[in-house]
Amino acid sequence: MKMAFLRNTWYVAARAQHVTREFLVRDILSEPVLMYRKENGEAVAIGNRCPHRFAPLSMGKLVGDAVECGYHGLQFDCSGACVLNPHGDGKIPRNAAVKTYPIVERYGFIWIWMGSPEKADPSLIPEFSHLADPKFTSVGDEMIQEANYELVVDNLMDLSHAMFLHADYQKTDMFLTAKHDVEQIGNSLHSRRVVPGTKPPPSFKSSLEDPDQPVDYWLNVRWDAPGLCVLDIGVVSAGRPQEEGIRRYGTHLVTPETEYRTRYYYASSRNYRLNDKKADEELQKWQEVGFHQQDKPMIEAVQNMMGEATDLLSMKPILLSVDGASIRARRILNQMVAAEQEEKQLAP
Amino acid sequence: MKMAFLRNTWYVAARAQHVTREFLVRDILSEPVLMYRKENGEAVAIGNRCPHRFAPLSMGKLVGDAVECGYHGLQFDCSGACVLNPHGDGKIPRNAAVKTYPIVERYGFIWIWMGSPEKADPSLIPEFSHLADPKFTSVGDEMIQEANYELVVDNLMDLSHAMFLHADYQKTDMFLTAKHDVEQIGNSLHSRRVVPGTKPPPSFKSSLEDPDQPVDYWLNVRWDAPGLCVLDIGVVSAGRPQEEGIRRYGTHLVTPETEYRTRYYYASSRNYRLNDKKADEELQKWQEVGFHQQDKPMIEAVQNMMGEATDLLSMKPILLSVDGASIRARRILNQMVAAEQEEKQLAP
Amino acid sequence: MKMAFLRNTWYVAARAQHVTREFLVRDILSEPVLMYRKENGEAVAIGNRCPHRFAPLSMGKLVGDAVECGYHGLQFDCSGACVLNPHGDGKIPRNAAVKTYPIVERYGFIWIWMGSPEKADPSLIPEFSHLADPKFTSVGDEMIQEANYELVVDNLMDLSHAMFLHADYQKTDMFLTAKHDVEQIGNSLHSRRVVPGTKPPPSFKSSLEDPDQPVDYWLNVRWDAPGLCVLDIGVVSAGRPQEEGIRRYGTHLVTPETEYRTRYYYASSRNYRLNDKKADEELQKWQEVGFHQQDKPMIEAVQNMMGEATDLLSMKPILLSVDGASIRARRILNQMVAAEQEEKQLAP
Repeated sequence: MKMAFLRNTWYVAARAQHVTREFLVRDILSEPVLMYRKENGEAVAIGNRCPHRFAPLSMGKLVGDAVECGYHGLQFDCSGACVLNPHGDGKIPRNAAVKTYPIVERYGFIWIWMGSPEKADPSLIPEFSHLADPKFTSVGDEMIQEANYELVVDNLMDLSHAMFLHADYQKTDMFLTAKHDVEQIGNSLHSRRVVPGTKPPPSFKSSLEDPDQPVDYWLNVRWDAPGLCVLDIGVVSAGRPQEEGIRRYGTHLVTPETEYRTRYYYASSRNYRLNDKKADEELQKWQEVGFHQQDKPMIEAVQNMMGEATDLLSMKPILLSVDGASIRARRILNQMVAAEQEEKQLAP
Repeated sequence: MKMAFLRNTWYVAARAQHVTREFLVRDILSEPVLMYRKENGEAVAIGNRCPHRFAPLSMGKLVGDAVECGYHGLQFDCSGACVLNPHGDGKIPRNAAVKTYPIVERYGFIWIWMGSPEKADPSLIPEFSHLADPKFTSVGDEMIQEANYELVVDNLMDLSHAMFLHADYQKTDMFLTAKHDVEQIGNSLHSRRVVPGTKPPPSFKSSLEDPDQPVDYWLNVRWDAPGLCVLDIGVVSAGRPQEEGIRRYGTHLVTPETEYRTRYYYASSRNYRLNDKKADEELQKWQEVGFHQQDKPMIEAVQNMMGEATDLLSMKPILLSVDGASIRARRILNQMVAAEQEEKQLAP
Repeated sequence: MKMAFLRNTWYVAARAQHVTREFLVRDILSEPVLMYRKENGEAVAIGNRCPHRFAPLSMGKLVGDAVECGYHGLQFDCSGACVLNPHGDGKIPRNAAVKTYPIVERYGFIWIWMGSPEKADPSLIPEFSHLADPKFTSVGDEMIQEANYELVVDNLMDLSHAMFLHADYQKTDMFLTAKHDVEQIGNSLHSRRVVPGTKPPPSFKSSLEDPDQPVDYWLNVRWDAPGLCVLDIGVVSAGRPQEEGIRRYGTHLVTPETEYRTRYYYASSRNYRLNDKKADEELQKWQEVGFHQQDKPMIEAVQNMMGEATDLLSMKPILLSVDGASIRARRILNQMVAAEQEEKQLAP
């Protein structure tokens, strides 16, 4: 059985700078979505399929803020309503409309709501304020993973793979020894690890005033369904509050394009070596090697081994202690999807 | 549900000059058909699958007018009968035969009958005599469309798309204002438009004696199921009979290769600027731009939006006034297919 | 209905020289198999799918004789058992194991048993001792056929196709006239043809002391299910025992990778012109032309004509006298598979 997608939630539809007066088309939860900006700069997302003869509206053009279908010239406004029929008596046929999607522009992303529009509350977008915070410098990009999105999320929720898959970059025994708490708050998961009074790890060492002084070293992860993760890794002089430390936030935003294809947005934000191109390059190198050359082939190989299956748990994997967070995330997501499906069946 | 193909009808199997003493293989209604010419020049069409081990006969060779299978040497004559078994006692096994298809060579095409051979009446081939008329000069070619054939036919039956998809070539408001009659005669549709006493359109202007004189400008379309269309577009001095005018016939012949792949033959025949290479080039340019660069991507994008579906109407499109002819054609075709299927079930 | 694979039998998994300290992965009966050699040189075959998160073990590395998964570092030994869990308390989860396959290295091949391990009796490997016999010189290679393995076996069991498909190399009327006996011994088929007192065929002529003397010319084939064939073709002075003659053994070993993809290993072994490079080149040329350029396109075209079907007989081919051996082989195989399936259902 295929698992339904979670619909009443915010997904990243695109990076904000990619939505312009040129059409941008994306599959999101297997639906074709067309994005562009109105003349006043506001972003818009509507269904990309003309209701007349199913032409992709993206093959047409913008006429002001409306979209003109390239096949027969019907025009649709930003609400999805047909506003011009150039044929015959020009009457607009009943039902001549395309879907429209609530969107919000925040943190440099266009967020889209794929569920019931009346439930689209912008305050439900989790907080990623470091992305817009001038005290941080961020570098990031996006990529396609030819795999089910839950496999991508598993990879993020399970940091133990770094010791093996990313051994060249991330060799550390911290994750073998650190105490690991996982707490559920609402539908969010918060995982926290801290190694008190230890030697600073190489990637922070050169940015510390006194690299020989012991530090508290932490790694926290927050997950929101279905695939919004932020990692918070940092060091502070032993015994001092984390707010005084230097840290990197890793932002990982996972959007299902289809069951088997995932768009994955990532960024690394640091509050040290600000505007330092060399630091940017080091982090971009890590993203290229770690995410593109190591994670992606592994995740896609796992999907390939699973064939057409998407539900890992239905295939009865053996479970290790390191799977706690990812399994918990899968279970929360399953419950949320099941609740949504049930609600849908009860709807009048 | 997949719609069956109409079988008791003539399809274009190939352009006549492509059928030679070299084998030509074409999928037609998802059947593999092998064509060649006999030593006396007569064209032949038989099934391409050897009944012994299912080798494509096209991997064999001609021995006189018979086809020798390249795997084990069975020979089949033009009637599809096995006429030589080179093995053992040489006895021809019962049922050792391939399908044979009635064909007719006419108007520069090989026409094939995919239904019951006893019903294959050559007089049922619609008339396209302009293709062989010395008073006309024709230019044409063929192409593949990766889409269901009915989408290709829709495109032909619906000229209003020219104003948008072919706006650069065909900008005109004629279709917005002209009276439009559609008449059904038997299973043929005849659509007629005329704009009386108007300015001659650019493509005819330079061929008129007095380009400033008003003309009657017409556009007629004839459709025969499932996909044989002829457009007749022309101008004549206002008030004079169409026979005196200059005109172009557009011939559009659509053959399903499979449910999702269509071979589309087209030609433009004119009774002015005869043997004028520049006129040929202008028309070929239009065919290249209009059919290959504009229609084909749009039609294939529509099929892509429809996924595995082939029946547009089952997807509940909204309908416009301009869809009258194409919807009528779809309905006639549906009735003809249904009648054929019913007859098949009643057959002893 | 898809036919099950025969499991309790030996298949060739790889040529021995290809199994090294580098991982070799092969699909065999649609299962992913990982092969490598232990430090002592012994070959090993285990399942390639980690039971934890289904990563291909081939993306990991060897640690001594154990395989370390590249994703999370679980280690498996040659018996398939998990022997190291680097996470948490290091406890090995129950069921943490991959499949292991009995293998035997013989005649230059790694033979694998895909059925119940307790039935894996090495003495069931048919005899191909000419491959290791210093009195013979062998040349061979392997190839992929994008077709069901039974179509590849049909081709081997049916030598009559040589007169047509390989007419340029193998033109002979021997197979039209020679008496042909087929005998079943256990589940093996033995086909024997002999032409007594005839002119020596070209490929042997130059290696005979007196090429004008009449010879007895034979061609024997042995088949073991599902696809292990050896052809024995030779000549001897008329009336003398075959042991005194010169001969070539053609070894043809067919392993299903999936239903629609077959790996085919072949070799030609001769007891004349030993270590003669020119003779090697002649045979390699024949293998290249006959197997790669002629058999492979034909067999793949047949599969293509059969679509998704794999059981030729279910498609009711007409049968010729030359199909006796291949049909008999298919029937024996069908019985063996049916017996195996029945036994499986009766198992507690």
